[in-house]
Amino acid sequence: MAAQVQRMSRLMVKTLRDDPADAETLSHKLLVRAGYVRRNAAGIWSWLPLGKQVLENVTRVVREEMDAIGGQEVLLPALLPKEPYEASGRWEEYGPELFRLKDRKGAEYLLGPTHEEIFTLLVKDQCTSYKDLPVTLYQIQTKYRDEARPRSGILRSREFLMKDSYSFDTTDEGLAESYALHRGAYIKIFQRLGLDHRVVSAVSGAMGGSASEEFLAPAAAGEDTFADCPSCEYAANTEAVTFTAAAAETAEHPAAEEIDTPDTPTIETLAQHLGVPASATLKNLLVKVDGEIVAVGVPGHREVDLGKLSDHLAPAQVELVTAEDFTGRPDLVRGYVGPQGLEKVRYLADPRVAAGTAWITGANKDGVHAKNVVAGRDFTVDEYADVVVVEDGDPCPRCGTGLKLDRAIEIGHIFQLGRKYADAFQLDVLGQNGKPTRVTMGSYGVGVSRAVAALAEQTADEKGLCWPAEIAPADVHVVAAGKAVQIELALDVAERLAAAGLRVLVDERPGVSPGVKFTDAELIGVPKILVAGRRSAEGVLELKDRRTGEREELPAAEAIARLSA
Amino acid sequence: MAAQVQRMSRLMVKTLRDDPADAETLSHKLLVRAGYVRRNAAGIWSWLPLGKQVLENVTRVVREEMDAIGGQEVLLPALLPKEPYEASGRWEEYGPELFRLKDRKGAEYLLGPTHEEIFTLLVKDQCTSYKDLPVTLYQIQTKYRDEARPRSGILRSREFLMKDSYSFDTTDEGLAESYALHRGAYIKIFQRLGLDHRVVSAVSGAMGGSASEEFLAPAAAGEDTFADCPSCEYAANTEAVTFTAAAAETAEHPAAEEIDTPDTPTIETLAQHLGVPASATLKNLLVKVDGEIVAVGVPGHREVDLGKLSDHLAPAQVELVTAEDFTGRPDLVRGYVGPQGLEKVRYLADPRVAAGTAWITGANKDGVHAKNVVAGRDFTVDEYADVVVVEDGDPCPRCGTGLKLDRAIEIGHIFQLGRKYADAFQLDVLGQNGKPTRVTMGSYGVGVSRAVAALAEQTADEKGLCWPAEIAPADVHVVAAGKAVQIELALDVAERLAAAGLRVLVDERPGVSPGVKFTDAELIGVPKILVAGRRSAEGVLELKDRRTGEREELPAAEAIARLSA
Repeated sequence: MAAQVQRMSRLMVKTLRDDPADAETLSHKLLVRAGYVRRNAAGIWSWLPLGKQVLENVTRVVREEMDAIGGQEVLLPALLPKEPYEASGRWEEYGPELFRLKDRKGAEYLLGPTHEEIFTLLVKDQCTSYKDLPVTLYQIQTKYRDEARPRSGILRSREFLMKDSYSFDTTDEGLAESYALHRGAYIKIFQRLGLDHRVVSAVSGAMGGSASEEFLAPAAAGEDTFADCPSCEYAANTEAVTFTAAAAETAEHPAAEEIDTPDTPTIETLAQHLGVPASATLKNLLVKVDGEIVAVGVPGHREVDLGKLSDHLAPAQVELVTAEDFTGRPDLVRGYVGPQGLEKVRYLADPRVAAGTAWITGANKDGVHAKNVVAGRDFTVDEYADVVVVEDGDPCPRCGTGLKLDRAIEIGHIFQLGRKYADAFQLDVLGQNGKPTRVTMGSYGVGVSRAVAALAEQTADEKGLCWPAEIAPADVHVVAAGKAVQIELALDVAERLAAAGLRVLVDERPGVSPGVKFTDAELIGVPKILVAGRRSAEGVLELKDRRTGEREELPAAEAIARLSA
Repeated sequence: MAAQVQRMSRLMVKTLRDDPADAETLSHKLLVRAGYVRRNAAGIWSWLPLGKQVLENVTRVVREEMDAIGGQEVLLPALLPKEPYEASGRWEEYGPELFRLKDRKGAEYLLGPTHEEIFTLLVKDQCTSYKDLPVTLYQIQTKYRDEARPRSGILRSREFLMKDSYSFDTTDEGLAESYALHRGAYIKIFQRLGLDHRVVSAVSGAMGGSASEEFLAPAAAGEDTFADCPSCEYAANTEAVTFTAAAAETAEHPAAEEIDTPDTPTIETLAQHLGVPASATLKNLLVKVDGEIVAVGVPGHREVDLGKLSDHLAPAQVELVTAEDFTGRPDLVRGYVGPQGLEKVRYLADPRVAAGTAWITGANKDGVHAKNVVAGRDFTVDEYADVVVVEDGDPCPRCGTGLKLDRAIEIGHIFQLGRKYADAFQLDVLGQNGKPTRVTMGSYGVGVSRAVAALAEQTADEKGLCWPAEIAPADVHVVAAGKAVQIELALDVAERLAAAGLRVLVDERPGVSPGVKFTDAELIGVPKILVAGRRSAEGVLELKDRRTGEREELPAAEAIARLSA
């Protein structure tokens, strides 16, 4: 079957020499400059002809691998009624990230960010018996999230293409199997896409559920940070790294003692005043958890990860305290809080604040701290939880080796949701024992449009995009330097390559200099570039590998044979 | 390449024996009953596995034919900023049909009903010279319209799949050529889909522009009415049928004379009171055109088509008058209006109210009419316009033969837009003469999801759906009656058919009676049904044509050979 020849003279592709002013990441710059995408509004993008082809190639790979594990493709609406999301609680929980709207009758709708509720209702309607399960349904569909800071081009946009799938099983073992099938399919998908990726432990967050893993594509432009153990197999999103509880210390400490420390409301001013490292101090952060004030203690040199804290306390809502929260609370002395005086406040601490450890901390009096304040002796920790920001060199939870932190793009996420949504919608089927059995679910996502950006990030070089073969908009980019004999040869070779089943882009634009054509070819990033140049009269072309830059001269027939091999 | 075998035991398809309570049209009933679609909210639908396959088949045909005329596929956002639609005037013009929403920052957006504005801006950004044109861009994308009365299942929904394309040319001849290319492509598309269709003249409506044609699929469930001439080639949407002006009459009439007609405020009461046909009377409808009262005169037996009237007066807004509009207007006597006394009111009349024709009409006094009121003598028509509802038997505007009216579903629409949007956005390119040249546009749509409903309407019979081969979710539906030997034969034949490149659905559900399986097969509507029944032990199957019901017994090898031929 002959593939199509695309002519640059007819293709709507306008390349730019300069980076767009607002672009920060490589993929954003290059996808715009090479004419793949165009911005319509903040976080809202158009896919131009070359971009649409790349997006379609990624979509095809995702579809094939989902079909291979028995996924059934469906297409659900993006415009969704409020009620199911109200029933699950996510109408509220999503907060401002949800696009909400009303129809002409005033009924409320949302633009779907993900479809757990709707799939649960669908299966409740369609499946009545254990014989109807397991079932895995998927869709490749436009999703909406009103990001606070849409940026990085198509990497974090407000309208994006996602493959979301949902598995339905009657047993935990069945869910584990559906999860494993997806995990395998995702690895195949990202391998076929040519995406360097890591599977890391993740937190389930607002989605709910028990186990989850993320698929991360390491890239400088990534907005996620993950921790990688150089010794063992451990890898996790930093939000999911948990520090094993430290052993209690048994050393004897002198009695706690107050010390005058005027004007030292911060760890920095305190450590400087006393001439001690920040790690010798105990930092106490006050937060409101569903309105109640809670203190969180961590070593002075560490930061509280509000994401981890929120995840730990979910579904309770966590907010920072404001000046008003101190009124009528003489027990809370701003800047000088210490756990030893907080009788009415719940105290959550990092495992590093182990029993027997001694700290310099606030004395609950203005301008006064206390030293030798010992955990378990002078104050009680109500609950231990790892809620600090993970740092490079923190111990691996599995083997203790210092972790290495890296930036990455989240390209996939798989969740064992369990029965959260099935409970919300009473999704039962008739079990083998004749009784109603509650269904257990998994939910799985691939960022299809984001994968295009991740691929661009990982494969581009200083000259431009550089696509893996399966994803590129063409297999070969034939460039006619300019003269009639060169154009004739280029078109002839292009047709013959297409007849051999290759997807060909041919640059036969009249009045465009060879230099511009070469620069454009490198920017557009088709893996093989075939130039009809100075030896065209002899029928000899130059074949260039876009990635390595290797080039060699070949007669047309040999070039065609080589490329179709 | 081996196609896939789909097993009914694993496919999520739940057939229903009863029509859904709210379904009125055949396609609505059958697509729901056969498990192709499921309703999520008014006019908002999910495509289940079988439905998605049919939708995908239609999409593929549309894409192939668009590519064949050189269309370049893109994908623009559905969530669109307000500004371009404000600039074109359509933010207001669309009225309540537009889904509008705000983002977290309060910026206004809409869900795209059609994308003329956005494509115009895209081309303005990408194309700078006549050398970049002509260009035809298309997308197959989810569209949104907040229909006042979403109904008939996927036939008139609020979220739907559409192929929209836009052509850009520098000359009128170029536009005519782009239009002709689309016209040809659409005919091919509907032929391949197996849709009986007519190309009819249409009005351009809110879209603006000069020439337009609709592609209509005749069907009882259709919401459009078109007029067909039995003698000549003329066919048009009834809204586009225009009555040629009648010749002035020259007969002498007696002087106009008032007649007492108490309690006759309607044509019916008047005609009955006087014992004359309604056609002898003149009906005067009062409307408000941009707030100003206008009278519209038509023969008493005809109805005013508000759609045609609005189209004729566009962009002015037309409203019906209310009781309040009569206060302070003693010249307007409700129920007894006559053009002979309406000095301050603009008078628009049907061409049938030709100069010299005499009428019985209101005398502008309560309970009084006048007879022998002659057009051109006793009153002046400010403007003639055909704004009556076309009726069966009205004369063909081309040859005069009585027209025949039929119901149909609009499945495609092509417009020569001209320079309306190019003017709104100053879309110019550098012309061959070195000067800026205003671009001229065409806009073209195919209702992809609606085409599925239209196909169902045209091809279904009392047993269920009955798809054309290219669109069906499978080529063959293999049914295993039930016994082990039948299931074994069915699965074996299914695999062999798939190996021959056919798409196969096999019903091997255990514990489901043969009767249910046969009924389901007819409901689902795959064109060929192959039954492994009572002669399975001998390897003989029954091949049945879904449409004709013809059946014959064949050995497996012969059945496979016949089907793959």
